[in-house]
Amino acid sequence: MKIKTTILLIALSLTVISCFKKVPEEPGRKAEFGLVIHGGAGYINPDTFTGEKKQKYISKLKEALTKGSSILEKGGSSLDAVEAVINILENSPLFNAGKGAVFTAEGTNELDASIMDGKTLNAGAVAGVKHIKNPISLARLVMEKSPHVLLAGDGAEAFAIEQGVELVDSSYFFTEDRWKYYLKVKKEREKKNISFAKENRDEKYGTVGCVALDKHGNLAAGTSTGGMTFKRFGRIGDSPIIGAGTYANNNTCAISCTGHGEFFIRNVVAYDISALMEYSKLPLQKAAEKVVMDKLVKQGGDGGIIGIDKYGNIAMPFNTKSMFRGFMLDGKEPVIKIFK
Amino acid sequence: MKIKTTILLIALSLTVISCFKKVPEEPGRKAEFGLVIHGGAGYINPDTFTGEKKQKYISKLKEALTKGSSILEKGGSSLDAVEAVINILENSPLFNAGKGAVFTAEGTNELDASIMDGKTLNAGAVAGVKHIKNPISLARLVMEKSPHVLLAGDGAEAFAIEQGVELVDSSYFFTEDRWKYYLKVKKEREKKNISFAKENRDEKYGTVGCVALDKHGNLAAGTSTGGMTFKRFGRIGDSPIIGAGTYANNNTCAISCTGHGEFFIRNVVAYDISALMEYSKLPLQKAAEKVVMDKLVKQGGDGGIIGIDKYGNIAMPFNTKSMFRGFMLDGKEPVIKIFK
Repeated sequence: MKIKTTILLIALSLTVISCFKKVPEEPGRKAEFGLVIHGGAGYINPDTFTGEKKQKYISKLKEALTKGSSILEKGGSSLDAVEAVINILENSPLFNAGKGAVFTAEGTNELDASIMDGKTLNAGAVAGVKHIKNPISLARLVMEKSPHVLLAGDGAEAFAIEQGVELVDSSYFFTEDRWKYYLKVKKEREKKNISFAKENRDEKYGTVGCVALDKHGNLAAGTSTGGMTFKRFGRIGDSPIIGAGTYANNNTCAISCTGHGEFFIRNVVAYDISALMEYSKLPLQKAAEKVVMDKLVKQGGDGGIIGIDKYGNIAMPFNTKSMFRGFMLDGKEPVIKIFK
Repeated sequence: MKIKTTILLIALSLTVISCFKKVPEEPGRKAEFGLVIHGGAGYINPDTFTGEKKQKYISKLKEALTKGSSILEKGGSSLDAVEAVINILENSPLFNAGKGAVFTAEGTNELDASIMDGKTLNAGAVAGVKHIKNPISLARLVMEKSPHVLLAGDGAEAFAIEQGVELVDSSYFFTEDRWKYYLKVKKEREKKNISFAKENRDEKYGTVGCVALDKHGNLAAGTSTGGMTFKRFGRIGDSPIIGAGTYANNNTCAISCTGHGEFFIRNVVAYDISALMEYSKLPLQKAAEKVVMDKLVKQGGDGGIIGIDKYGNIAMPFNTKSMFRGFMLDGKEPVIKIFK
């Protein structure tokens, strides 16, 4: 009887203890500083995406990571790293952001971007700008030099002029590859009489993003995109929407998204990962997987995310075939991946 | 010894039981159908806001509630009720939405709206439209007749034309009161050389919104606004942002927000209340209070929200001096409130 009671007591005690262990223990510090980047999720074929073309992407992503890491290593802010990294990707014709943006139905380029500071929860974003070389830098000006979060269209460009930002001619964004693709899509659409921009599963989405943790423990996130090929009607995707395409909070994580924007807006994807960490006490990887590999997959929402938390844990889940991505922690060797 | 053991066992058992009661029991059904509306949070003085003026607001809010309730009573959808209610408030010059919208810095009216279906998580929104009589109805068309969520500016109006929506001349939105207020603000700004739209704490924000539960158990939410007086640079607030100003999910709640939009975007207010219900298992009232009376207050974010859950529980917290609000449950007497 006494032994039975003792066993029962021990069992109950263990249950009680396990009960109070809902909150996972604070994980060990994985990295003092670091960053994760993406260059878009999509459906690239590993059999044909090879050789020189592949190398071009890898070396540009490495260049961006190395630049961001060097800023962080010197004690620079995560915001500075995020902006500098995204500037490099915007300036490269390889990605669908800044130079190399896809064309709208009207044959123009309309760019969206957003940035968020995890320390202050301050944020800035621009949507539908046509003459801004580096939309992420304008988003940062909105955050730091205006009381607003989101400025759109001509208004955002008027703000840029007031801030001394030089506008570029729309021809700056032109690339032969995107234009050819635009003409191809246009032809198909005219044949099938399709009214709306549809996601092009064959193509990578090409949005770029960066999340970073600096030596001061501050997180930041940023995203920049040209949106969907053949988008019409002033369509705005998730990239300039705080909570959907971009979110950062020192208490949880910094997130940047890429994929079929409408699903990311409706599911408030970036903030949902943060909420799962804060309220459900999930670690970053689990929270990110729940949203990208479960919630989004159930709805048919293509895409992926990159994330980093305050301990330097990172996550890069995606539910498409490919996602240009990479990370660099504590200044160690940059790691680049494209396929699963 | 045996008594001690028994007491210990009982104590431990109770602890274990309480441990597994984290999830609050399913609350009893408060109402089979119903709706909550708001006409903006702000700083109206109860000593001067009296008599005929006050009565005008009360009777318009009652008219809107009664219309929505009659749709729900007949078995109509929460989406239909939300749209019809907001149409009434948009068509009234009393509120800062549709006719009666405030003026931008350029002396124009730029309207934002969004709507979300809690059953499907589908959503639609428009931002910066200038010739749309009922922006909430265009938001619904975006949701139902396009693959997109958010359309902005001229593009959104081109979509409206394609959908057979009649555009109105911008003079339709003109009201003497708003114009006088615009001129007053303009004069002050020219004197002080203020560049940006600032919140006007003296004024009510005037955004309108509605959340509803129908007899089929479906939730819906909608919000419509003219934004901030003297806004510039294509500023977009929280009203057309799914997750910030509007959110609905049959599993949790339907929310519509009013207040200083930038704070609502950065705090992803509408979705945060849903996340607190889903992940932290808070009831609607507690979740709404945590966000509006704690998180937003700490940051100086003025405003309020209305919410309804699947059991017909409602919440209407606000951290300003006043919020036009009201509810009507199961077709019973409509209730209107303005002050605390």
